[in-house]
Amino acid sequence: MARFFKKRKETKGQSPGALIFIGNQKVENIRLRMIDYDQALLKEHELNNILEAAEFKQTKTVTWINVDGLHDLSIMKEIGATFDLHPLLVEDILNTGQRPKLEVFDNCLFIVLKMIRYEIEKQMITTEQLSLVLGDTFLLTFQEQPGDVFEPVRERIRNHKGRIRGSKTDYLAYALLDTVVDSYIFIIEKMGDQIEDIEEEVLEKADPEVMEKINTFKREMNFLRKSIRPVREAIIQLSKLDSDLIREQTVPFLKDLQDLITHTAEAIDTYRDMLSDQMNLYNSVVSNRMNDIMKVLTVFAAIFIPLTFITGIYGTNFDYLPELHFKYSYLVFWLVMIAIAVVMLLFFKKKKWL
Amino acid sequence: MARFFKKRKETKGQSPGALIFIGNQKVENIRLRMIDYDQALLKEHELNNILEAAEFKQTKTVTWINVDGLHDLSIMKEIGATFDLHPLLVEDILNTGQRPKLEVFDNCLFIVLKMIRYEIEKQMITTEQLSLVLGDTFLLTFQEQPGDVFEPVRERIRNHKGRIRGSKTDYLAYALLDTVVDSYIFIIEKMGDQIEDIEEEVLEKADPEVMEKINTFKREMNFLRKSIRPVREAIIQLSKLDSDLIREQTVPFLKDLQDLITHTAEAIDTYRDMLSDQMNLYNSVVSNRMNDIMKVLTVFAAIFIPLTFITGIYGTNFDYLPELHFKYSYLVFWLVMIAIAVVMLLFFKKKKWL
Amino acid sequence: MARFFKKRKETKGQSPGALIFIGNQKVENIRLRMIDYDQALLKEHELNNILEAAEFKQTKTVTWINVDGLHDLSIMKEIGATFDLHPLLVEDILNTGQRPKLEVFDNCLFIVLKMIRYEIEKQMITTEQLSLVLGDTFLLTFQEQPGDVFEPVRERIRNHKGRIRGSKTDYLAYALLDTVVDSYIFIIEKMGDQIEDIEEEVLEKADPEVMEKINTFKREMNFLRKSIRPVREAIIQLSKLDSDLIREQTVPFLKDLQDLITHTAEAIDTYRDMLSDQMNLYNSVVSNRMNDIMKVLTVFAAIFIPLTFITGIYGTNFDYLPELHFKYSYLVFWLVMIAIAVVMLLFFKKKKWL
Amino acid sequence: MARFFKKRKETKGQSPGALIFIGNQKVENIRLRMIDYDQALLKEHELNNILEAAEFKQTKTVTWINVDGLHDLSIMKEIGATFDLHPLLVEDILNTGQRPKLEVFDNCLFIVLKMIRYEIEKQMITTEQLSLVLGDTFLLTFQEQPGDVFEPVRERIRNHKGRIRGSKTDYLAYALLDTVVDSYIFIIEKMGDQIEDIEEEVLEKADPEVMEKINTFKREMNFLRKSIRPVREAIIQLSKLDSDLIREQTVPFLKDLQDLITHTAEAIDTYRDMLSDQMNLYNSVVSNRMNDIMKVLTVFAAIFIPLTFITGIYGTNFDYLPELHFKYSYLVFWLVMIAIAVVMLLFFKKKKWL
Amino acid sequence: MARFFKKRKETKGQSPGALIFIGNQKVENIRLRMIDYDQALLKEHELNNILEAAEFKQTKTVTWINVDGLHDLSIMKEIGATFDLHPLLVEDILNTGQRPKLEVFDNCLFIVLKMIRYEIEKQMITTEQLSLVLGDTFLLTFQEQPGDVFEPVRERIRNHKGRIRGSKTDYLAYALLDTVVDSYIFIIEKMGDQIEDIEEEVLEKADPEVMEKINTFKREMNFLRKSIRPVREAIIQLSKLDSDLIREQTVPFLKDLQDLITHTAEAIDTYRDMLSDQMNLYNSVVSNRMNDIMKVLTVFAAIFIPLTFITGIYGTNFDYLPELHFKYSYLVFWLVMIAIAVVMLLFFKKKKWL
Repeated sequence: MARFFKKRKETKGQSPGALIFIGNQKVENIRLRMIDYDQALLKEHELNNILEAAEFKQTKTVTWINVDGLHDLSIMKEIGATFDLHPLLVEDILNTGQRPKLEVFDNCLFIVLKMIRYEIEKQMITTEQLSLVLGDTFLLTFQEQPGDVFEPVRERIRNHKGRIRGSKTDYLAYALLDTVVDSYIFIIEKMGDQIEDIEEEVLEKADPEVMEKINTFKREMNFLRKSIRPVREAIIQLSKLDSDLIREQTVPFLKDLQDLITHTAEAIDTYRDMLSDQMNLYNSVVSNRMNDIMKVLTVFAAIFIPLTFITGIYGTNFDYLPELHFKYSYLVFWLVMIAIAVVMLLFFKKKKWL
Repeated sequence: MARFFKKRKETKGQSPGALIFIGNQKVENIRLRMIDYDQALLKEHELNNILEAAEFKQTKTVTWINVDGLHDLSIMKEIGATFDLHPLLVEDILNTGQRPKLEVFDNCLFIVLKMIRYEIEKQMITTEQLSLVLGDTFLLTFQEQPGDVFEPVRERIRNHKGRIRGSKTDYLAYALLDTVVDSYIFIIEKMGDQIEDIEEEVLEKADPEVMEKINTFKREMNFLRKSIRPVREAIIQLSKLDSDLIREQTVPFLKDLQDLITHTAEAIDTYRDMLSDQMNLYNSVVSNRMNDIMKVLTVFAAIFIPLTFITGIYGTNFDYLPELHFKYSYLVFWLVMIAIAVVMLLFFKKKKWL
Repeated sequence: MARFFKKRKETKGQSPGALIFIGNQKVENIRLRMIDYDQALLKEHELNNILEAAEFKQTKTVTWINVDGLHDLSIMKEIGATFDLHPLLVEDILNTGQRPKLEVFDNCLFIVLKMIRYEIEKQMITTEQLSLVLGDTFLLTFQEQPGDVFEPVRERIRNHKGRIRGSKTDYLAYALLDTVVDSYIFIIEKMGDQIEDIEEEVLEKADPEVMEKINTFKREMNFLRKSIRPVREAIIQLSKLDSDLIREQTVPFLKDLQDLITHTAEAIDTYRDMLSDQMNLYNSVVSNRMNDIMKVLTVFAAIFIPLTFITGIYGTNFDYLPELHFKYSYLVFWLVMIAIAVVMLLFFKKKKWL
Repeated sequence: MARFFKKRKETKGQSPGALIFIGNQKVENIRLRMIDYDQALLKEHELNNILEAAEFKQTKTVTWINVDGLHDLSIMKEIGATFDLHPLLVEDILNTGQRPKLEVFDNCLFIVLKMIRYEIEKQMITTEQLSLVLGDTFLLTFQEQPGDVFEPVRERIRNHKGRIRGSKTDYLAYALLDTVVDSYIFIIEKMGDQIEDIEEEVLEKADPEVMEKINTFKREMNFLRKSIRPVREAIIQLSKLDSDLIREQTVPFLKDLQDLITHTAEAIDTYRDMLSDQMNLYNSVVSNRMNDIMKVLTVFAAIFIPLTFITGIYGTNFDYLPELHFKYSYLVFWLVMIAIAVVMLLFFKKKKWL
Repeated sequence: MARFFKKRKETKGQSPGALIFIGNQKVENIRLRMIDYDQALLKEHELNNILEAAEFKQTKTVTWINVDGLHDLSIMKEIGATFDLHPLLVEDILNTGQRPKLEVFDNCLFIVLKMIRYEIEKQMITTEQLSLVLGDTFLLTFQEQPGDVFEPVRERIRNHKGRIRGSKTDYLAYALLDTVVDSYIFIIEKMGDQIEDIEEEVLEKADPEVMEKINTFKREMNFLRKSIRPVREAIIQLSKLDSDLIREQTVPFLKDLQDLITHTAEAIDTYRDMLSDQMNLYNSVVSNRMNDIMKVLTVFAAIFIPLTFITGIYGTNFDYLPELHFKYSYLVFWLVMIAIAVVMLLFFKKKKWL
């Protein structure tokens, strides 16, 4: 299946706003986890039913509900109803081929982005869609499968570390986004490390494996770029957003995040350029080596072909071939051949082929 | 005929606003289909004459008239008169080489775009021009030939599915545009699938067929890009438009559509880049293989040419050639030749050609 | 002489605003043709003297004066004086290396553009400068030589076709610009036709002639682009211009023209990209063919060089060479050689060189 | 020394605003020439001392002082004091590696640009820094050495030609800038002429000299571009500037100049593209020729290597080699060889290598 | 470790605003140096403790505290508390992989940039992060290690040179930034010098060492570009900033600095282009040389292979081979061979291979 571009609907022309899950089901059961906290209180438990969350929605505490697994449409519909979400928003959550974006709704902000994993043995990037719905007192996060990079944030909530317990949903959303961007940086640094080493390999071996490696990284960097650039756009938009949902004291954090994702996006471009340069270098190296091969061939051929020709002459069986019968013929024959060889060698020396 | 660029008029300097059909007539008779609906009522029938539609234009119901076939100028003129369309608008409908665009007229919005078909066996994109005229109570659609991607929308109208029956012409226009963009995505995904597979083929075979394939996809992607980029511009313009014809509740849908077409346009660029990378990879592979070929040739030549030269020497017929007459000459001769061969092999081993 | 860039003045530092004709005189005598019309009246005759036109300038009718030939400075000065033109404007008319542009003066708009001819046998574009001065009641057009693409417009004026007779100078200017843009489209379509066919030629022959052809089209496309892109800028500027000289009902026509020239400029870029792709394809084809040639050479050399070496051995004249004297030596010799040849062939088969 | 980028100060961290001359001293003595004029009066003489100019500064006449040679810091300091120039301005005048720019000070405009010379035999561009300080009643110009392109302007002042005597300092500045831009055009046209001719050379010879030529022009075009693009920015800025120092009637002249420098900058880009295309063409030609060479080699080798092998067989000295003794052996031997040659030739004919 | 991109935190998801030092500790002890001055007074001493600085913060004098070494978190925390710095600001100081930027806080401006060193023997750029915190009466600078380019500025303060003693913190910040930019220019000029010389080397030798050199410079130029471009953005932002902390008389200096860094950034791009052109030139030279090699090989092979074939014929041992027994056979044999050689030479002469 096309990895770089996925269709949105099962069938062309389906009703927009109709709920369909687009993607591969990666988990058996949908799992709903809730953390509800403020400066003083902290409740954390798993929900059997989204309706259990309804009461928390009303309170002023920060209610973070994380949903793992998207394939159960009835649950998704319930969530949409409970938190009063626009149908298009729910449709976008379910469509895992969504382009990262920020969308502003009347009662909430909606952010779609990609979590990225680097499968190091396959040298391949895989992505999972992450959707955030940021309301005044609640934050919903939707993932395709369990297992995420958010555990440190949960720890910080539990351990009352940093400013998170004293802040509102916008800071929580920032903390999660920050964690996701950190995971991007982590992967790009790991890949960058390998990419920066390729140059030496090119100069040393330049065999087709190196070329395949360059190509693989190029493809994966393109894939990363495609995934991260719209995330950057969304974060820039977010940090400039004039919305009641973003409190003033969170703005410097978002600006910082914007710098970070910009830096990240630039690093991707730098590595892409580096890979292109390495491809060029590779081609130059190959072309140089060809030159070397051809020189060896030419030197051998140009020296021995004339000599062989001469031996051919004195291998003929003409009745009348006077040189064959002189006493010093064989000696002269050798001297002539050595002279020819020396002249050729000097010629190639002059041409700097040796 | 030039596929990428078609002239607008039969003759240079023809009066603008004059009605001429530019294109290939693809259908015998023009066919007029009308669907008229609101929340409660639904009428659907074929019109013999555009005048039958005049009464529906007045009512508050949504009147969708679809015209298949553009070559009959008198009918087109009648439609223009009935719905009070600007002459330039009608001219643009008839000119099938039009660049996709949105144009705002006093009483209507005019959208030109391209429907795209992918003829899989020819690996070739073909386009058909689709024009939409969006008035307050009517929507006109003009196609070059029958057969379209709109059947699911008609089904939704008939079956009262989704919000379409409760909405106005702007939502209908959105639904149609959405369907068209879906069909783009469908095609690009199908092509993308094949493109993503080419890389492996390049690494495996890299024969001229693969190169032709890359080239064909490149050309078709350029063609797609040329067709879809202005559609994107038009949709962005539409979703930002300040017009009474676009109701507020339709705007989020248009924004969603804008994301979608942006995503699509980016996918095309991604595939174009991928094809360029594959072309580079192809050239590297070919160049590597050349290296291999040359190595084989050089190794053979460099080993055997000196040896053949030596056999030549002892094939000469000099009267005085003492080595011929020693008892172990032949043995020494063999040993020397084996020694030379071994030295050459070691030399090539050191050069990593073997 | 440089075709792509011409100097402006005969000598560096010449007084700006001084009238000098820069270009090649292409016509013997300057010819002044006037058409004066409104809805009801039409006068068309040739002027001996620009002063004859002075009276028409005052009337409310549309006065179109076309000037063929620019080399007579005294006539140009008279025209400038009669129609009260800024000295820089007249200087620009005379300088045929002018970049296309729109300039707004107090009493008139000044548009410079290029008429383009495609000399099909030379496969070469030539340009001629066309200047338009659009006043309230007059339109002046200046061409380097007689023979233009405006005849259809004159016909429409004479025959009262379309809206031209009922409109003002701005519509006339539009009609002329439209005709010029049509002629661009005509040429680009003709060239595009040939360009689209090159691909097949490349895949079939890829000989240097094809390469020269690609190169010629590339150069001419660059030339076209250089000529047409600033025309596009000028037309966009014109269609957005807030000037009394452009009546409101003409604006949709100018918008349409803007779409057209944008489409045209994009087509040029598309063809340029296509030519670059074809050049790449060409190089790949050549490189593939080289591979083929080298394979043939290597296969022949690698099979026969060892065999020849063996024949060499048994052509030596060593006194003691036992194999020569066995009964089945010759047979074995043949068998060995056939075996070697078969092994080599299998080796090359395995390497997929055969 | 680096031609493309020069350091600004002798030592890192030197006090900004401190006066140091950065550059090569190109003249023995600084020379101060003054022209003072209005519609009626004209004084022109050489100054021994800048203080002589102080009185003219007060009058309403246009006072143009041209300074040739920048190395005498005390004189530069005096000029700065006399005309009340900002220390940074004077520092910039002295730093000949300055990027062209326009700077607005309270009492004057400061323009830095480059005069360009094309040393045709070296095919090399050299630049000299020109600084203009435009005050209300004075214009200062600073050059690195005597000898400039301004003589025609001086002539126009002396001869009362054009509008220069009736205008103020801004028109004088325009006239000088115009002259400089003219000199750019002059050079680019001359180089363009040669560049346009290279294509034919490439197709004819494609030897390394042509490649060096392309490369030289590329480098010089880059140098020109680097020098002229910021000049363009400065002129655009100048023509849009809202300053009392620029009178309204001078604005159209500046707009014209802006068109001119834009045209010039575009011409440079066009030539750069053309040179890149020629480089590609060159590489294609070389690659084609390689193909030709390889074909010849392969045809010779593939025909004669098998034949030589056969002669080798019948040159062996096997005791039992029956073919040697048949009567028609030699004839058959020839026929076989001719047959082989013919077959090979047909094979190459079919492959279109002949 | 990846040189081009470093991760920000030790572990993903760490609390933002938490202080962690990211980088390599390059110095044993943190060193705090203070200079406190105004027009009249000057105090300069080393601090044992940041609290000693607290009193100076209050006074109106300029207090410049330079911190060498960043790894001691407790000291950094104290500094943050003493000068009332935002936690994110302190975090950014500690993270040495920061992208250069300007950030505006309520009580101060925060500028991050890179000091650059060029290790000439390794031909490698290294960077060190420099952070500036510009308050109303204090300026803090943070460096990773002692040893900087600021000594000349300190000298100017001590020696009362230029305007620095009479100015405020903003001018001091400018002076430091100016010094840093000067050091960029110094390095780029040094590299540029070497880069401009490569061209000649390419044309002379074009061996793989030259290619490696081009590649090294390309990589370092990319690294420089990555480091300097965001510095440029920050300086442009700074010179346009509307803040009380930037006094009006400092603005022209900042504008000047902006010109300088723009010039610098452009120089980097120019050198990058130059290196790309040199790479292309290199490839052309290599390809040309290949042509030369192949020509030599082909000429030798094409002349001697047929000749050797002929000698082979007369080396055969056919019983009936009449030519062997004619008297002038050997002479004719030589004449034929010379004729063949001459024909071949003429053929290659005509093909311009000799």
